Amino acid sequence: MRNKNDFAPRAPMGWNSYDYYDTTVNEAQVRANADYLAAYLKDAGYEYVVIDIEWYANDAGKRRQEYQYIPFGHNEIDAYGRYQPSPERFPSSAGGKGFGPLAEYVHSLGLKFGIHIMRGIPRQAAHDRLPVQGTEYTCDQVADAWSICGWNPDNYGVRDTAVGQAYYDSVIRMYADWGVDFIKCDDICDTWMYPDGHRITFSGWHETRMLHRAIMRCGRDIVLSLSPGPAHVDRAWEYAAQANMWRITDDFWDNWELLKPMFWRCETWADRVERGCYPDCDMLPFGKLGAGFGEERDTQFSKDEMRTVMSLWAMFGSPLMIGAELTKLDDWTLQLLTKREITGLLDGAHHGKQLRRDEEEAVWINYGENGREVTVALFNLSESQREISVELAAGADILSEELQWLSGADGFTDVWEGGRTEAVEGCLSATVPAHGVKVYQTVMK
Amino acid sequence: MRNKNDFAPRAPMGWNSYDYYDTTVNEAQVRANADYLAAYLKDAGYEYVVIDIEWYANDAGKRRQEYQYIPFGHNEIDAYGRYQPSPERFPSSAGGKGFGPLAEYVHSLGLKFGIHIMRGIPRQAAHDRLPVQGTEYTCDQVADAWSICGWNPDNYGVRDTAVGQAYYDSVIRMYADWGVDFIKCDDICDTWMYPDGHRITFSGWHETRMLHRAIMRCGRDIVLSLSPGPAHVDRAWEYAAQANMWRITDDFWDNWELLKPMFWRCETWADRVERGCYPDCDMLPFGKLGAGFGEERDTQFSKDEMRTVMSLWAMFGSPLMIGAELTKLDDWTLQLLTKREITGLLDGAHHGKQLRRDEEEAVWINYGENGREVTVALFNLSESQREISVELAAGADILSEELQWLSGADGFTDVWEGGRTEAVEGCLSATVPAHGVKVYQTVMK
Amino acid sequence: MRNKNDFAPRAPMGWNSYDYYDTTVNEAQVRANADYLAAYLKDAGYEYVVIDIEWYANDAGKRRQEYQYIPFGHNEIDAYGRYQPSPERFPSSAGGKGFGPLAEYVHSLGLKFGIHIMRGIPRQAAHDRLPVQGTEYTCDQVADAWSICGWNPDNYGVRDTAVGQAYYDSVIRMYADWGVDFIKCDDICDTWMYPDGHRITFSGWHETRMLHRAIMRCGRDIVLSLSPGPAHVDRAWEYAAQANMWRITDDFWDNWELLKPMFWRCETWADRVERGCYPDCDMLPFGKLGAGFGEERDTQFSKDEMRTVMSLWAMFGSPLMIGAELTKLDDWTLQLLTKREITGLLDGAHHGKQLRRDEEEAVWINYGENGREVTVALFNLSESQREISVELAAGADILSEELQWLSGADGFTDVWEGGRTEAVEGCLSATVPAHGVKVYQTVMK
Amino acid sequence: MRNKNDFAPRAPMGWNSYDYYDTTVNEAQVRANADYLAAYLKDAGYEYVVIDIEWYANDAGKRRQEYQYIPFGHNEIDAYGRYQPSPERFPSSAGGKGFGPLAEYVHSLGLKFGIHIMRGIPRQAAHDRLPVQGTEYTCDQVADAWSICGWNPDNYGVRDTAVGQAYYDSVIRMYADWGVDFIKCDDICDTWMYPDGHRITFSGWHETRMLHRAIMRCGRDIVLSLSPGPAHVDRAWEYAAQANMWRITDDFWDNWELLKPMFWRCETWADRVERGCYPDCDMLPFGKLGAGFGEERDTQFSKDEMRTVMSLWAMFGSPLMIGAELTKLDDWTLQLLTKREITGLLDGAHHGKQLRRDEEEAVWINYGENGREVTVALFNLSESQREISVELAAGADILSEELQWLSGADGFTDVWEGGRTEAVEGCLSATVPAHGVKVYQTVMK
Repeated sequence: MRNKNDFAPRAPMGWNSYDYYDTTVNEAQVRANADYLAAYLKDAGYEYVVIDIEWYANDAGKRRQEYQYIPFGHNEIDAYGRYQPSPERFPSSAGGKGFGPLAEYVHSLGLKFGIHIMRGIPRQAAHDRLPVQGTEYTCDQVADAWSICGWNPDNYGVRDTAVGQAYYDSVIRMYADWGVDFIKCDDICDTWMYPDGHRITFSGWHETRMLHRAIMRCGRDIVLSLSPGPAHVDRAWEYAAQANMWRITDDFWDNWELLKPMFWRCETWADRVERGCYPDCDMLPFGKLGAGFGEERDTQFSKDEMRTVMSLWAMFGSPLMIGAELTKLDDWTLQLLTKREITGLLDGAHHGKQLRRDEEEAVWINYGENGREVTVALFNLSESQREISVELAAGADILSEELQWLSGADGFTDVWEGGRTEAVEGCLSATVPAHGVKVYQTVMK
Repeated sequence: MRNKNDFAPRAPMGWNSYDYYDTTVNEAQVRANADYLAAYLKDAGYEYVVIDIEWYANDAGKRRQEYQYIPFGHNEIDAYGRYQPSPERFPSSAGGKGFGPLAEYVHSLGLKFGIHIMRGIPRQAAHDRLPVQGTEYTCDQVADAWSICGWNPDNYGVRDTAVGQAYYDSVIRMYADWGVDFIKCDDICDTWMYPDGHRITFSGWHETRMLHRAIMRCGRDIVLSLSPGPAHVDRAWEYAAQANMWRITDDFWDNWELLKPMFWRCETWADRVERGCYPDCDMLPFGKLGAGFGEERDTQFSKDEMRTVMSLWAMFGSPLMIGAELTKLDDWTLQLLTKREITGLLDGAHHGKQLRRDEEEAVWINYGENGREVTVALFNLSESQREISVELAAGADILSEELQWLSGADGFTDVWEGGRTEAVEGCLSATVPAHGVKVYQTVMK
Repeated sequence: MRNKNDFAPRAPMGWNSYDYYDTTVNEAQVRANADYLAAYLKDAGYEYVVIDIEWYANDAGKRRQEYQYIPFGHNEIDAYGRYQPSPERFPSSAGGKGFGPLAEYVHSLGLKFGIHIMRGIPRQAAHDRLPVQGTEYTCDQVADAWSICGWNPDNYGVRDTAVGQAYYDSVIRMYADWGVDFIKCDDICDTWMYPDGHRITFSGWHETRMLHRAIMRCGRDIVLSLSPGPAHVDRAWEYAAQANMWRITDDFWDNWELLKPMFWRCETWADRVERGCYPDCDMLPFGKLGAGFGEERDTQFSKDEMRTVMSLWAMFGSPLMIGAELTKLDDWTLQLLTKREITGLLDGAHHGKQLRRDEEEAVWINYGENGREVTVALFNLSESQREISVELAAGADILSEELQWLSGADGFTDVWEGGRTEAVEGCLSATVPAHGVKVYQTVMK
Repeated sequence: MRNKNDFAPRAPMGWNSYDYYDTTVNEAQVRANADYLAAYLKDAGYEYVVIDIEWYANDAGKRRQEYQYIPFGHNEIDAYGRYQPSPERFPSSAGGKGFGPLAEYVHSLGLKFGIHIMRGIPRQAAHDRLPVQGTEYTCDQVADAWSICGWNPDNYGVRDTAVGQAYYDSVIRMYADWGVDFIKCDDICDTWMYPDGHRITFSGWHETRMLHRAIMRCGRDIVLSLSPGPAHVDRAWEYAAQANMWRITDDFWDNWELLKPMFWRCETWADRVERGCYPDCDMLPFGKLGAGFGEERDTQFSKDEMRTVMSLWAMFGSPLMIGAELTKLDDWTLQLLTKREITGLLDGAHHGKQLRRDEEEAVWINYGENGREVTVALFNLSESQREISVELAAGADILSEELQWLSGADGFTDVWEGGRTEAVEGCLSATVPAHGVKVYQTVMK
């Protein structure tokens, strides 16, 4: 029996076009990044190549001073109201082949192929009353005229009806035919822009269920990733029933004001990370970024902050999607991204837990399922270097059983700096730079 | 120099099709009600005949079980993206004459002609990229793809640009040509469904200014009425600068749960009633109602409650728009609507003021500008009959100057019941039924 | 090493004085209820006898028309600012013995003894600057002048300082000396009355941690129950770290308007029920209620509704605290409360899960840890009798593995009505009365 | 007949101790500032000397690192639960004379004497059950145990009962005996910290009415000023009925981030300025400030910004209360404060009106009641110097009648810079520095 959790037995890792290309990525660029991923990052576990938003927009990026997403823009739509790749941007899609050829190329590299979608149906398809493939219905019967996205003008939401499901089935069937392995669906995970009780419909909840149903019916194992966040923790059980990933933050970018609250977000969701179910901290905005947004730039994160990102995402168990332009990746960042002690935590057999957090510090622990590998991360959330300690001996108020066991460790590896250290007087301590982290790993006997 | 306040030197009075017909009124029905208005109500000051929402909808009322306003419905639109009367419903509009012939008929009765509009531009006109009359632009350049109405699917909002203004100018110019005297614009006065800070645009503020500008430019005196409420009291000065009426409540209907809060609403707005500027308590849901909503029914208001409505609206200074099907009006209600002591308060030379209010009672006073006519209303807001008094003698905490002067009155007329009464020991008192009112009027020497 | 989860290895069951006595219960009444509990309910698992709010109030219930909790009332406080039982109401407390003798009596029946407290410190103790036992500090240094309860005027919150902890330690130490086994702390679980960002302090989060710490230090196993709800699901991990029970609803009473939303609440918290950690649905308002509130009355719940309460609470795994006056319990209700197939679900080795829910129906399943006992509950949330089915065969969209396994069951016991039934064509179906429930139980081979 | 509007026929002007002294001002300091006010500012209209918060606190400022207002502090209270001046700080109050001698001194200078109060009754008086003067009641019957201030720990609110009124009457009677002319009551005007619907009582509305009543009964003309803001514009009529001034902003200090929104605030309240009724923009934080807050400092406002403050406050019609330490006032600021063309706008016979505002500019006009004096202010709200114009000729969309009349002016005086200017081609224009203002004044023939 098919179970959507089997589609993602470990937290997905890969590359996503958004942070560098915004809406503008084209086929050659996707292929170049896929080539790099296969050559340098696949061994560390990165396998998904994801084309982000607006691959169907023929005028993507043409009026960037005014709009990220052009209202009433020229989008490529087939006769059944389904988006198609913009043919100039993705030449291999010519002749109605969609992303089939590109997916095939990505698969040939031993990688997986993913695309971004907006929930819903093109507004234009509704106003043009296009037929729904394989049915007697038309797209105006699918669309909910009150369900629009607060920031992207392309779609109406899909109504929670048999006709609506038929439309989603027709779309996902097409994606399965193309060979899509991963769908990042947008405007579906958080409702913050559709406040409770007003009449603009938020139809994300039922559209999630419809997408899940369409995926289960399509016959192909497709990972479903929900965006944007913050996801609603009171609906945690529901995300887990329908999807594989859901964003726990709004778009994450390269600044400390966004990074620091991730500790609070991860704390909230820590006990919700399970096989096939991954609260998602969003992309890694490292390396070269922003070309599609106006100007290529380097990440604003310091090296300490990048280590903090990698360490928190991995200790927690978040998917890891690289936002950088891979062909311009520097050595230091490549080393960072492929540090095996860190990426190894995402093998599907490790579990993280926050030990404590305040405004100055956070301490996490992560156990391997074999019961022997233990990792401890000491995060400095403050604005200056500080000494951070965790008591392994008895007496600590909380979780002392686990930590006491750890006091028997035969020394710890310093993951990021190298070298070994030991607990002193029952305390594991380190001097940690501002915004930085110290990660210690040990194997218990 | 033209001043929009001159367009409505006293609070507008008339008839509106909505409460009885919902979206379905047709030409014959409008004429029949206009005939009645001219024959029986004009002398009391009622003069506007207003066709409410969806006069352009060819399928109005056809799917009433599902929708009040049909999404992606069949609306009559001209080549410039402007709504036209549905030709089957309004035969005289044939040949592109719009509401011209019907307006002419209404004018021939000595009455004025009004129509309802939704703010904005037809969504279909934007997706079809229709030209804007007299310009080189198209309607997709006018429309704001994020500005939709929370309850009616027809339009997009109009953008605050020269192109947007050109569209509104073209629309209002056409209305002026038709002979329109009164525009009730909807989805423009309150933003409660577009909460502060979210990305669904509320464009009502600038669309109000654009409509005002278009009206001032069109050369015809057109009263501008804004709907729905509740209007925002902190923008009171702005409504007063642009419009003639603005609703201070959401749709008002015939039940006490809506009527009781009107006392609080009128209290809030009482000192904002000025020449040409009328906070609007909404239609009078009396007589026969609801045929277009599914089934004709009698008002649920008791006679006491109807007197309360008439008395409060008039003491306060609200416009009076009758919601009843006039051709079926009963005698009692006709007498109520034409009570001269009450309608006379809306002659543009009377001013009302609340003296006090609590959960049980409200007392209002109203002065004629000539300084001699004084009206006092004692409202019983409670669920049982009670004795209500107002002290005219010294000693009252508030407003005692005015009331003390009134203690010299030579008796009072009981407006609703007839007869005379006098103050006793400096108190004007009455036994008032639950939900009812006692109105006393006097002329000071 | 002590672990607070060991203090409550299964969901606590017992009796609580509030629903019948309000603030007024006295020693004789507690003893009578304890006697009944020992005689008739202990075997079914009920063991806690809990004295609810205001046992320290000498004037409890004396001004009930005006106040439930009398402001500036006459409360019994010792020289160290700690509440003591009101001596007239609890004679055995004379001579500074507190609840010691009463606890001893309860223990002698094989039962456990619990009390209610408000978080914080008596306001009077702060204004009188009483000393904190065993320290050089005074109570004005303990109290937070901005942390008050929104509905009870007795206390100030305790500040998050060493002095504050010393006060809580002194209080819990005294309770431990008395023999208290269970503390229901109030005004500590929900912050809905202290909205985010305003300056009235909500100090419940740190007071929870301080109480937990004081309990761990006191040397006695004391169950900590937090009230009122709704608890915040985003802090679920934190409740679980500090307490044994936390209310997921505001006060629950005997009407359907409160019962129906419990299905939504249980859905939200279902995967948070763990050993030592019990989301709490609140008391069972059955039998005779309300004497202390003004007049003794019978529960307003129908028999079907009472079965629904018992079934949902048990399938979910909530604590069961009886609100009835036990000495007046009728036979039907006693049978209901002691139905072994239901109370057995709270043995600490059963886990519940919602299969589906909409406005009309909810279906839950519960498994025994031995992997063989399975219970299915079909709830009718609608206003009329309806047929409710659950498909056990393949094809159901969700959870089909588990249900398919269940299709091999050799018939089901009808828990409430008795008798046996079988699945028909892969469906387990029943006709369920409005607001009622059908519970089926089976043991798989 | 007494009318509270007669107590303040023009907007009050004077000095207030808060911005410089915080809670710590003493008698000598008050006298010194009063002397200065009489000598240098009285002629320009400044007449009130107001002692701000905590004049009853014996330990004011003693724990300033921790608290602005010390919880459970040592406050001076008489036998009837009424605050008295701290005797060490105000030596002339010895022997139960309160502020009588100091008020007498201020009066001897031809000035008026004002004090700050917190709404409510000392918490300590309630817990000590002190008697209410002239009654058989005690202070615990006056106090509302749920009505506390969100930022000051001294008081409970007063209940809306006859006992509560008796307490307020006793307090105001005492103030009248002392010779108080002005009361600034705090924690009474805005409810932002007591959100709608929660159980912490906001009793400001009824306490305002009680204070007004007590003032009307006390026989002395006492101006009532309400604080803090922002006041609620939907209750505008109510403030106007009870008080003379009400703050339209939270505390105003010397930075642009607070000054810029004052334009929006004044726009909202502009048509609410009437005789005896003054929306209040708060103190002028000029000159030397902050000594009581930790360190004396100079205002952070630039000279342009100070002119903007003076011009906006005066054009609008706000009270003017100087926050500076007067004995250290520099010449430039003294000239600013006493500019007659500006202070003359507050003579009770001038009325201001905003002509337009956007993010970059605001334009105000002010007319004298004699119909001849006209002032125009061009404010630059942007971050760089800009040319600001106002069209006096026909064609402007709004208010053109008034402006067209102004086009006949025979030149304008530049109020701040001196010199004369004229309209050019029907436009009054100026180059205005960032954050600055140009004020033109003319007398029409």
